[in-house]
Amino acid sequence: MALVVQKYGGTSVAGVERLKAVARRVAGARAVGDQLVVVVSAMGDATDSLLDLARQVSNHPPEREMDMLLATGEIVSSTLLAMALNDLGCPALSLTGAQAGIWTDASHRRARILVVDAHRLLKEMGAGRVVVVAGFQGITREMEVTTLGRGGSDTTAVALAAGLGAGRCEIYTDVEGVFTADPRLVPEARPMAEIGYEEMLELATYGAKVLHPRAVELGWLYQLQILVASSFSQAPGTCIHGGGAMEVRNKVRGIAHDTDVAKITVAGVPDRPGIAAAVFEPLARADVSVDTIVQNASVENITDLTFTVARGDLARSLDIIKEVLPGLGARELLSDSGLAKVSVVGSGIQNTPGYAARMFRVLAQKGINIQLITTSEIRITCIIDEDKVREAVGVLHHAFELEKAGD
Amino acid sequence: MALVVQKYGGTSVAGVERLKAVARRVAGARAVGDQLVVVVSAMGDATDSLLDLARQVSNHPPEREMDMLLATGEIVSSTLLAMALNDLGCPALSLTGAQAGIWTDASHRRARILVVDAHRLLKEMGAGRVVVVAGFQGITREMEVTTLGRGGSDTTAVALAAGLGAGRCEIYTDVEGVFTADPRLVPEARPMAEIGYEEMLELATYGAKVLHPRAVELGWLYQLQILVASSFSQAPGTCIHGGGAMEVRNKVRGIAHDTDVAKITVAGVPDRPGIAAAVFEPLARADVSVDTIVQNASVENITDLTFTVARGDLARSLDIIKEVLPGLGARELLSDSGLAKVSVVGSGIQNTPGYAARMFRVLAQKGINIQLITTSEIRITCIIDEDKVREAVGVLHHAFELEKAGD
Repeated sequence: MALVVQKYGGTSVAGVERLKAVARRVAGARAVGDQLVVVVSAMGDATDSLLDLARQVSNHPPEREMDMLLATGEIVSSTLLAMALNDLGCPALSLTGAQAGIWTDASHRRARILVVDAHRLLKEMGAGRVVVVAGFQGITREMEVTTLGRGGSDTTAVALAAGLGAGRCEIYTDVEGVFTADPRLVPEARPMAEIGYEEMLELATYGAKVLHPRAVELGWLYQLQILVASSFSQAPGTCIHGGGAMEVRNKVRGIAHDTDVAKITVAGVPDRPGIAAAVFEPLARADVSVDTIVQNASVENITDLTFTVARGDLARSLDIIKEVLPGLGARELLSDSGLAKVSVVGSGIQNTPGYAARMFRVLAQKGINIQLITTSEIRITCIIDEDKVREAVGVLHHAFELEKAGD
Repeated sequence: MALVVQKYGGTSVAGVERLKAVARRVAGARAVGDQLVVVVSAMGDATDSLLDLARQVSNHPPEREMDMLLATGEIVSSTLLAMALNDLGCPALSLTGAQAGIWTDASHRRARILVVDAHRLLKEMGAGRVVVVAGFQGITREMEVTTLGRGGSDTTAVALAAGLGAGRCEIYTDVEGVFTADPRLVPEARPMAEIGYEEMLELATYGAKVLHPRAVELGWLYQLQILVASSFSQAPGTCIHGGGAMEVRNKVRGIAHDTDVAKITVAGVPDRPGIAAAVFEPLARADVSVDTIVQNASVENITDLTFTVARGDLARSLDIIKEVLPGLGARELLSDSGLAKVSVVGSGIQNTPGYAARMFRVLAQKGINIQLITTSEIRITCIIDEDKVREAVGVLHHAFELEKAGD
């Protein structure tokens, strides 16, 4: 009898009928003998409604109060799912994050799980019950309610699976797994049967819509198999795991893209030690998350420093850099907000000759200009104009034959 | 600096604007130096919405799950009020029943408070914060969430006031206090400045709409002054306390009525020991709450046993009594569901000649037939036809000159 942790996202429990459908899926899994812990998100737009209420009441609601407020969304869905399960003759009970033993630090709105005390969970499962846990929340040693921030319910599920030594963690969402590219851009994109943790992380924002990187990292740390599948179909989904099969290494697995990209170039800087620090330290202090960084090779001791930020951070970043600019002796400050990132992802592709060249050639043939290039062990990324992103993802998907089943 | 517990009912926090108005009242009380604990109910129809969700999901939701679900309603309103207070520059934080140290027994949907552990409350007040407590809820030693059932938030407020040794408990609602009669029936009815615990309890269902009897009893037990007033006006409200002023004893204070009355008569029973037990024991086992009981004096060893129940319990009660009827040797079983109760209430009135007689004469002059009479130390009650109740309450209010201020 396997112990399985399942997680159902907000879309999967949006409304009473969908919630009942989830209950039938859970009861079905229970009927074949699995011991089940089920993690749920808040129903549909419940969290947005709570945020809206808070916004109407206060411009600066204390984060502690926000956590208390938001945590109710998942309590509501978890109790309703437990009721629906009991109605199907499947003994079940709901637990808040606190009751489920999810102890966190005291960073409200973005708490980190410190430890999972599985005592109560094991007791309830031992009594034959399905345990439905309110996702996204925990409790501090001072009995303060916390929420886990982005990807919170995914993280709850993976942490519980790790804490319970579960054989598998199943994340049910509204897509049929991790696709070779965003199917809204590439109609031929198809769900992969499996993918490695690192590859999954490199799928970046596209992958994050399916499973939050934080949950992937936690799964990686505990070497836990994570299945991502649709709660609306019986499609097999994508299994995320560590031991990538030998034959799928050294192969492009998917095309990732991100359209929330702005570029800043500090051009014509006299090349001397400390330049990068002078630029990035004040940005870090202002909590600006810098993504790609490229410093071109120095020509005659003059260099260009280019990096990307999210578009919403562009204006603020420029303000900060303008302040440090005089000390740098730079020629000019350039920026561009109409950009996108497109990447080919696959274990070991950097060490395999030809992939990067093929990527650049394919883009060039379509007249798509590459503004920046960066690579990692398993990813080659080009920054291009945003209005070319759909075409770029499409031609790359075709060029690497990702529409053909092969993994 | 007085320590005051305030409670705001669901109507007082129905919607963001009303909630902000409550925040201004609380901040105002805080500004004059009171230490404040504020108990809130769920906003407006929030509890009904949650009940409706549960009903859509399950016909027989487990009571434990219902408690988890319903408790979220008060958590939402308490966090929003804490946010609104902070926005006004008044340091505040919200606490769930569990965080506020409200320990209860494990009777879900109708839990009783066992003890209030005021440790956390005192710590937060000591740090200069207004503490907003989610009403209606508590927690068991096993960390299970409970709700307190009817009158729950009133009870939370009085229990906290008792546990903290507060000087006063203020219950803010949508009426301006305890009236001499229901103002919907008697336009001349006016709020009383004060009333004794026992008198308040005898106001029965009319009084219960203002403050639940359970909270009155708890206040009585701890000799705690309870102010009932409107959150929508500055009217002084009604103070409920123990030491009724000497000059307001032996006086009719108010006219109570109840239109949810059905009468059952077991007629022509041979009068022998055990008859009452034979009738009421099976009703008690079936959890039927029997109100007024009258057994007429026996004539030739044949007696009539009459009692009243809530209308919703009439059919069930008749079924139960039909089963025991053969053993009683009764002549017949009669019932009437179109009845109402009207009472005059005032400390010591039973010992003051003339009140009962005046009540009966006033009703007779209006041609209102009295079907049953019962009395207590502080109350004289007549059961009459339901369609006469408005007229009866009106003439009694006038006959005892309750429209004149005098307390």
